[in-house]
Amino acid sequence: MRAVCLLSGGLDSSTCLAWANKQGYETYALSFDYGQRHRVELDAARTIAKALGAAGHRVAAIDLRVFGNSALTDDIAVPKGRDEARMNAEIPVTYVPARNTIFLSFALAWAEVLEASDIVIGVNALDYSGYPDCRPEFINAFEAMANLATKAAVEGRMRVRIHTPLIQLSKADIVRLGVELGIPFGLTHSCYDPDAAGLPCGECDSCLLRAKGFREAGVEDR
Amino acid sequence: MRAVCLLSGGLDSSTCLAWANKQGYETYALSFDYGQRHRVELDAARTIAKALGAAGHRVAAIDLRVFGNSALTDDIAVPKGRDEARMNAEIPVTYVPARNTIFLSFALAWAEVLEASDIVIGVNALDYSGYPDCRPEFINAFEAMANLATKAAVEGRMRVRIHTPLIQLSKADIVRLGVELGIPFGLTHSCYDPDAAGLPCGECDSCLLRAKGFREAGVEDR
Repeated sequence: MRAVCLLSGGLDSSTCLAWANKQGYETYALSFDYGQRHRVELDAARTIAKALGAAGHRVAAIDLRVFGNSALTDDIAVPKGRDEARMNAEIPVTYVPARNTIFLSFALAWAEVLEASDIVIGVNALDYSGYPDCRPEFINAFEAMANLATKAAVEGRMRVRIHTPLIQLSKADIVRLGVELGIPFGLTHSCYDPDAAGLPCGECDSCLLRAKGFREAGVEDR
Repeated sequence: MRAVCLLSGGLDSSTCLAWANKQGYETYALSFDYGQRHRVELDAARTIAKALGAAGHRVAAIDLRVFGNSALTDDIAVPKGRDEARMNAEIPVTYVPARNTIFLSFALAWAEVLEASDIVIGVNALDYSGYPDCRPEFINAFEAMANLATKAAVEGRMRVRIHTPLIQLSKADIVRLGVELGIPFGLTHSCYDPDAAGLPCGECDSCLLRAKGFREAGVEDR
């Protein structure tokens, strides 16, 4: 059985890909070149897809800069050093409008072409940096929509399931799961605002959450 | 009030744009360069957006060829000369996997950036060539999902409405509405498989449905 796995090249999506492999799926990893400032994550995604043995990997080019309005795609500063209370209280400027809706739509298209029904996404409703499109109610609504959207679903050959294996896990839990699944953490990339050499800033939400996860799990992040 | 209007440059979407203008919306037209063989429709879209006075127009580049599997994006022959019974009975190879899901997801992103709640799409459940993502149940499910997807919706600043002014109209009704709204039909492009000069083939589903609509409405298609 085939599954399309959204793969940014970060810790969460890499863990999801390994999870799907372990479930017995033949995995097809999907990444996006969407004009993100941290495009270095695409190199990580390619390396991870290969390292974990994905049956296929595509990088879809979609220009989200056409609309602007996010610190991840525009000349807006990525917030640094936010504490947990602030992360939980407000949706940051790193939010990209409708990003997961767009990503899942592409995953749906590829799933239909592959005659797959299963889509895996590494959203997380706990340490989630406040993004609305990481919540279970969004995922459920997307799944319901997807089952009305495609030729394969209408013809009864596809029953879309969106899998979110990390949705109720803390970042520390994800690190522990990653250890269990043998994720090569050193190959993953999480930072929103890496330097020219691709090294993480250590201060953006993504870096801070990652550091906290490793710290709490008692695992060293190489 | 602003509305994002999906605009392919064809008869239906052009009529929708004019409809939205007449409703009093400040309209923002959105087209896609998705690797379609009939890219000449993008020129039509640009001309129409200007002619109808859209406040903005964007062409988003998204490569749907990355997945393949449609006669509109791949080296698969566009079916010609299908009669109505066949059009109603089977979903043709011109179906592009999850296309309207993807298009609406981008419209949602731009709507959020524009602080708009309204999205207009020219889907049609009657003379619809059998596409599953043109049906009311799909549109309703997308709307429900969209209202859980964005920061603006979660913060109560956006209540997404997907408008489908043509959904219950016959092609002849659409031509009549187009006449009423003063659509410059000669500027629109409907053919899936135009020749090198951009002229319509006259034999694909889209050409046949268009010709039937004009014939039944008793209007000349210049």
